[in-house]
Amino acid sequence: MQYPHHLLQLIQSLRKLPGVGSKSAERFAFELLEWEGQELATLAMLLGSLKDRVQSCEQCGCLLGDKGCTLCDLSQRDSRVMCIAASARDVFAIEQTREYRGLYHVLGGILSPMDGRGPGHLRIAQLKERVLAHQVEEIVIALDSTLEGDATSLFLKRELSSVCPAVSRLAFGLPMGSALEYVDGGTLARALSGRRIF
Amino acid sequence: MQYPHHLLQLIQSLRKLPGVGSKSAERFAFELLEWEGQELATLAMLLGSLKDRVQSCEQCGCLLGDKGCTLCDLSQRDSRVMCIAASARDVFAIEQTREYRGLYHVLGGILSPMDGRGPGHLRIAQLKERVLAHQVEEIVIALDSTLEGDATSLFLKRELSSVCPAVSRLAFGLPMGSALEYVDGGTLARALSGRRIF
Repeated sequence: MQYPHHLLQLIQSLRKLPGVGSKSAERFAFELLEWEGQELATLAMLLGSLKDRVQSCEQCGCLLGDKGCTLCDLSQRDSRVMCIAASARDVFAIEQTREYRGLYHVLGGILSPMDGRGPGHLRIAQLKERVLAHQVEEIVIALDSTLEGDATSLFLKRELSSVCPAVSRLAFGLPMGSALEYVDGGTLARALSGRRIF
Repeated sequence: MQYPHHLLQLIQSLRKLPGVGSKSAERFAFELLEWEGQELATLAMLLGSLKDRVQSCEQCGCLLGDKGCTLCDLSQRDSRVMCIAASARDVFAIEQTREYRGLYHVLGGILSPMDGRGPGHLRIAQLKERVLAHQVEEIVIALDSTLEGDATSLFLKRELSSVCPAVSRLAFGLPMGSALEYVDGGTLARALSGRRIF
């Protein structure tokens, strides 16, 4: 006995969400069947108009707020520094620290040869143009501390050293509140080599 | 810096899915931003028309297939047995075993006083009517082996013993492929008390 066709289609569509396998998708679909009609209509409307209502800034690639891109507003941001992030989501995480007041540039991903993502998939030409246009003095690379993040950072450093005097990367070390005995060896090694006189 | 309003609304809506907290909902929302417009439109359409396209059988409470309710078709099903399930989803799980050919009755939940779900929330009046109308000879209670499932089963047994000569419940015991040393004490105790001469 099969699920009704419409339900099957919904399950297939939900399976495309990250980390959602067929069991979770089925659970979501059956839960959605229990939702009020109004709630379903709201979610349908939010999804249907998502692309129209949430757009990216053509300059920095961050999400446009309800009042345009405040992150590209040179009266509020320091154009001497530019931070490179993989996604618009990472920009929100950095903004929440309130430690950074410079410009941003969203790459739209990182290099991942295994998935066929080469430099052509990233917004690198625009990045160089913007670095030159704003006469950026420091580029802060804020990519994941993964193998792909490391490779992309190295690639960017090589690409950008001709257009910007300083290219830095986020510090590696102990995360806040961690006990040394539980920290993995790689993290500890990088925390040691990056130690600072204080 | 806040997410755009539309994105916040989407995240709030997605948080209502089972097991989805704010982190997962954010992840889903940002992933949905990357989807093709066509994929988003399809999902929106599937959600918007879900209630219209997937309906429940008024008799048994199972989902109506594309050709009506095959589970209430007395020419194909044995009306002397009726299986009580908590949800339409559980019915699919039971059907997949191909071990059961009787009728079904979906309760629409189980008793859960903590959540304010009493007998009035379950389809019990209809259940009694159907048991009498079909002259059901055995009722099989197929509810979860949880505290609420046990309580609901006991309640149903008391309610139904006046209208049906036999009320049974699914067997408790070792799940397939389990090693005794890893089975919890409660399961093992119930497997012992339910042992069968073979």
